[in-house]
Amino acid sequence: VSMISDRFEPLFNPNSVVFVGASRNPGKWGFIILANILNGGYEGRVYPINPKEKEILGLEVHSSIEGLPEIPDLAVIVVPPPSVPGVVAECVKKGIKAALVITAGFAEIGAEGERLQNETVRIARQGGMTMVGPNCQGIISISSKLHALMPPLFPPPGPLSIVSQSGNVAGTVARKCMSRGFGFSKYLSTGNEAALHCEDVFEYLAEDPETKVILSYIEGFKDGRRFLETAKRVTAKKPIVMLKAGGTIAGAKAAKSHTASLAGSDSIFDAVCKQAGVIRVRDMDELFYVGAALAGGFMPKGRRVGIITGGGGWGVLASDACAMAGLEVVELPEETIKELDTFLPSWWSRGNPVDLVAGLRPGDVQNSFEVLLACPNIDGVILLGLTPALPRHTDWLSSGGLERSGKINNIVLDEIGDVFSRLMDMAHSYGKALVVASEMPFETEMLQKIGERGGVCYTLPDQAAFVFASLARYAEYLRESDARTEAIPRCTGP
Amino acid sequence: VSMISDRFEPLFNPNSVVFVGASRNPGKWGFIILANILNGGYEGRVYPINPKEKEILGLEVHSSIEGLPEIPDLAVIVVPPPSVPGVVAECVKKGIKAALVITAGFAEIGAEGERLQNETVRIARQGGMTMVGPNCQGIISISSKLHALMPPLFPPPGPLSIVSQSGNVAGTVARKCMSRGFGFSKYLSTGNEAALHCEDVFEYLAEDPETKVILSYIEGFKDGRRFLETAKRVTAKKPIVMLKAGGTIAGAKAAKSHTASLAGSDSIFDAVCKQAGVIRVRDMDELFYVGAALAGGFMPKGRRVGIITGGGGWGVLASDACAMAGLEVVELPEETIKELDTFLPSWWSRGNPVDLVAGLRPGDVQNSFEVLLACPNIDGVILLGLTPALPRHTDWLSSGGLERSGKINNIVLDEIGDVFSRLMDMAHSYGKALVVASEMPFETEMLQKIGERGGVCYTLPDQAAFVFASLARYAEYLRESDARTEAIPRCTGP
Repeated sequence: VSMISDRFEPLFNPNSVVFVGASRNPGKWGFIILANILNGGYEGRVYPINPKEKEILGLEVHSSIEGLPEIPDLAVIVVPPPSVPGVVAECVKKGIKAALVITAGFAEIGAEGERLQNETVRIARQGGMTMVGPNCQGIISISSKLHALMPPLFPPPGPLSIVSQSGNVAGTVARKCMSRGFGFSKYLSTGNEAALHCEDVFEYLAEDPETKVILSYIEGFKDGRRFLETAKRVTAKKPIVMLKAGGTIAGAKAAKSHTASLAGSDSIFDAVCKQAGVIRVRDMDELFYVGAALAGGFMPKGRRVGIITGGGGWGVLASDACAMAGLEVVELPEETIKELDTFLPSWWSRGNPVDLVAGLRPGDVQNSFEVLLACPNIDGVILLGLTPALPRHTDWLSSGGLERSGKINNIVLDEIGDVFSRLMDMAHSYGKALVVASEMPFETEMLQKIGERGGVCYTLPDQAAFVFASLARYAEYLRESDARTEAIPRCTGP
Repeated sequence: VSMISDRFEPLFNPNSVVFVGASRNPGKWGFIILANILNGGYEGRVYPINPKEKEILGLEVHSSIEGLPEIPDLAVIVVPPPSVPGVVAECVKKGIKAALVITAGFAEIGAEGERLQNETVRIARQGGMTMVGPNCQGIISISSKLHALMPPLFPPPGPLSIVSQSGNVAGTVARKCMSRGFGFSKYLSTGNEAALHCEDVFEYLAEDPETKVILSYIEGFKDGRRFLETAKRVTAKKPIVMLKAGGTIAGAKAAKSHTASLAGSDSIFDAVCKQAGVIRVRDMDELFYVGAALAGGFMPKGRRVGIITGGGGWGVLASDACAMAGLEVVELPEETIKELDTFLPSWWSRGNPVDLVAGLRPGDVQNSFEVLLACPNIDGVILLGLTPALPRHTDWLSSGGLERSGKINNIVLDEIGDVFSRLMDMAHSYGKALVVASEMPFETEMLQKIGERGGVCYTLPDQAAFVFASLARYAEYLRESDARTEAIPRCTGP
């Protein structure tokens, strides 16, 4: 076990938790967070602290940290700001190794808050304590069934971890992932990062075998050079996808009052990301989109894209989006066109995008897909329109009453997972990338079926192009960093 | 009834329809489209034509157009390309006033197709016929319950109409609208626009009392000047929201092979849109987002925005997005801050964005909202996080098990429509705009409840900022065109 794991073990895998500021009032965070810990199924011991209560949510309440029957690994602290330094001091005195300070009202509100924050950090540091926050939303650690978090959020286990300077951004992203069938390993809201910085968490997650992809929301770094060096080491092992806020004057001002962050120059940050192999995204949707695609294990060897579409408009929008994302919508070689001619109807577009023009034979999508995968000029396929690939697509089309009822046909629900898996396996067997977007606004249930197989179905061609470009960029970064790619074998599929 | 209505009456409100190319095979469009007409509940007479069949889907089949017992208003044509000119000639001979040519394989596939297309147009023009297509997906006209369309798509009645050079883009956008509780009036896929151009449809929809907002997907115009002049006239009456594709070389190439469109210069198109008051959007989601917001009747008097957020990260992202969209995240006047101080907890951000920092009292959102609406420095509010406004928000938070079940609490479902309506009414009563985004990924059912009240809840702060800026731009355009704003009273709410 490395030094970094030592520091984080009591945080992510505590044997027991003391909860300081427990409340019987369901309208208080001191109740809600405790309820979430219990509802999450945490199996370690939980010690609520409240000098005035005997029992909360069925747990025995203790009146002081000092009097606890054991030394808990982790303290969750929700008392009002002025009490925080004293509570942290008691924790240190007891020998508690990690603290999560949820309470807000520190450096983000001005000079008085900053003084309180500095005092708290000083006490934690002197005691050798790992302190998260203050002004943070909490933690999820799936392996420990620990959900010490403000919102009731219970994601399934999965390949993603998130580190965020905003709890509500992390929550939004997690819910987006969950609604698409993707799960988490670790989730940490770092708040003001008074002591523990996001870079520390990146280092830990790089070593965490349960984390395949790191998602991150950042408003500012305390030390740009350290971020660059850390990120370089981490991205050699696994991807970091990052949403950075505060790039405008208005945003920077809001960031200062949110987490007391100094947002810094946006263009410098962009350059740092490029140098460190960090994949930067533009919004919370893209944080999930790109993260999920990377978890799928696709590493395209280049930027040459083949597009298959069930209708022309989507193909035109995808072509625009590819061009704008720096991808090449390649000319198809004569042999590829000839091969497609052998089975596609006469009116197909005879070029890239391969436009099936509302073709109705389900085999056409899969056969075209395989021809493009075999084409040596193509590094991956953007497939637009998943339903035409379904064996019973025309049954569904000709049974108009079913869509009308507001529910997508159960036929589609049954078939979609298998079809998706088969297409992903085909792409992997050719060592090429596959990104899928569909014109159907699939119900949550269908998206979850796809997500459970490790797939994502985007809802816009623009998203598919952006994701493909992000995969290509990370693959390029790793290829260019020879030393790194030699050290860790890649491109092997999921 | 104006001349333009005369031309379009047989298309959008036909008394009877002849369906040329009907099929008994459920795998053919000649079956599927006919089934959609019947499933849609069209109440006029339908005459399927097929020389080899006696009965399809319970309808008597006729062997020729000539032999029909009446002159239908509209012909829907799905026969193979070489037969199309002949069929159109028969329609003209019979006296049919409008034709919808679904069949593909014309100018978009090359010289031979173009010849066939020109011949078809010549025949239709000589016969004074209104011809849509070829290579189009079909039509929906809610007032006539007419769904002569390839996909089974049955939107409820509503304020939006769509004109699209791509059927599958129109279908995607319609499904997005429907899943958010928004309905349609007219839906037309114009295909190759060999005879009828989208400008004609814009003119018609400008007069259509059931259409409040026109959505449009365009790959190219036959006549840029005509588009400019038409759009100017139309946008004086109601907004046009437009997604234009083919702006890159790759996209322009795809557009040529899709609808034989010449996409033209993207920057010139941008300038034309500005001059004509057309609101240009970047993707299919935005087409719905902006259209739905305009249907809500908000016309902000300026670009000064107040932001209310339940958590800081969303506020920072929204501030960035506002700055990038050209909106001003204004300084709050001292009196406004003082008023908020009277009821918000001490740790609120004391600035704009008004960050409630995970505040738990539901009244805080509504009270802050009203204070911002009353603030003379603000033209509208971006409200981030709708759930904290719900009366029983904390019940929901402290009952963690409910979210876990995968279903948002029924409590939320019950309350959301009313809360949304109340907030919209408050904004209208102050003559200010309201745009809402929420960190909760609401289920379809909840979004529909909101949509039924004419509201939209966006899922990213970025979307909210973009929508607010679009509302502001259209309002500015109308103010600057004095003559237009004098002719038609506005800013009166929904």
